[in-house]
Amino acid sequence: MGRTSDARERILDAACTLIHTRGYVGIGVAEICTKADVRKGSFYHYFESKQALTLEVVDLHWQQQRATWIATLSTDDEPLQRLESLLRLQIAAQRTAHDTDGHIDGCLLGNLALELSNQDGSVATKLQEVFADQIALVAAVLAEAAAQGTIPESNATVETARGVVAQLEGLVMFAKLSNDPAMLDGLWRNTLGLLRA
Amino acid sequence: MGRTSDARERILDAACTLIHTRGYVGIGVAEICTKADVRKGSFYHYFESKQALTLEVVDLHWQQQRATWIATLSTDDEPLQRLESLLRLQIAAQRTAHDTDGHIDGCLLGNLALELSNQDGSVATKLQEVFADQIALVAAVLAEAAAQGTIPESNATVETARGVVAQLEGLVMFAKLSNDPAMLDGLWRNTLGLLRA
Repeated sequence: MGRTSDARERILDAACTLIHTRGYVGIGVAEICTKADVRKGSFYHYFESKQALTLEVVDLHWQQQRATWIATLSTDDEPLQRLESLLRLQIAAQRTAHDTDGHIDGCLLGNLALELSNQDGSVATKLQEVFADQIALVAAVLAEAAAQGTIPESNATVETARGVVAQLEGLVMFAKLSNDPAMLDGLWRNTLGLLRA
Repeated sequence: MGRTSDARERILDAACTLIHTRGYVGIGVAEICTKADVRKGSFYHYFESKQALTLEVVDLHWQQQRATWIATLSTDDEPLQRLESLLRLQIAAQRTAHDTDGHIDGCLLGNLALELSNQDGSVATKLQEVFADQIALVAAVLAEAAAQGTIPESNATVETARGVVAQLEGLVMFAKLSNDPAMLDGLWRNTLGLLRA
């Protein structure tokens, strides 16, 4: 890979880490450049602004996550087993961050959602699309579970799927707040209740 | 009330509004002073720093909210009816904000939790106490519901109560993100599922 595209990737990596740890408002282009080891001129060659970069960070982050979601939700396991695997992967990611870095940074998407929703329309729109995608992926598994009779048909809805993702985001919030992955211990049990499984 | 204490209250009011709308990192003491119509010297007479002020804002906000929580959870209604009333009040608050200001700012406490948990230890500790208090209040109602047989004894736990608050915070996140109070429409139904009521 050429030097130029390498710089672009380094900027994206640096921004992803900084935004995940410290949010959007608190970081500047200069700091991103320092961390990425690129000059400001190079930054503006690739990105129009911190906002434009953030949109790409969100896209890239969800593309990578989405691949895992699809892989996990497409196995031959029973529908609810696949959903459980997906949620346990989210717990494991927070636990790994805690054990490796000493702190839980939570969900990049959820962090940005609360930080920027009422301040930056384009990032909010992008995040709405991402969460709608997540909720649709969960709803599709719920439809399979309902078809098999493992959950009531009345719970194979977008509203219930939104509740599943909301439960995940809410408990990740508490895990981040307490820097304690054990806050997520009840996630699957609570989700089973929510689904009336 | 004297002029001096009035300035203190104006600072607290201004900070609460600004932090709720735009977060902690993005606002400065100068902006708070302008909104409160006080001089910087006056600010530092009452508060050591933006952080010290934020701790008071969180305290004050929860003290006010807590009074409503206690009043709502102490009526003669059935335990689950009281919990439903409490959650419907949260929905109504977001809907009122939407209809009045045109934007949903979400939960001040949840916003700060995601913005500051891994950056400001004293605000995080304060927020942990507040959420622990919320969860304990919900757990107490769940214990009453279990004693009456409306929910299984095994769901009258802190873990389930944490799930109830997590569901609320997660759906408030989606309401804020989409600037749409309808995101909260499933809250009570999802909560009943979670409780296996």
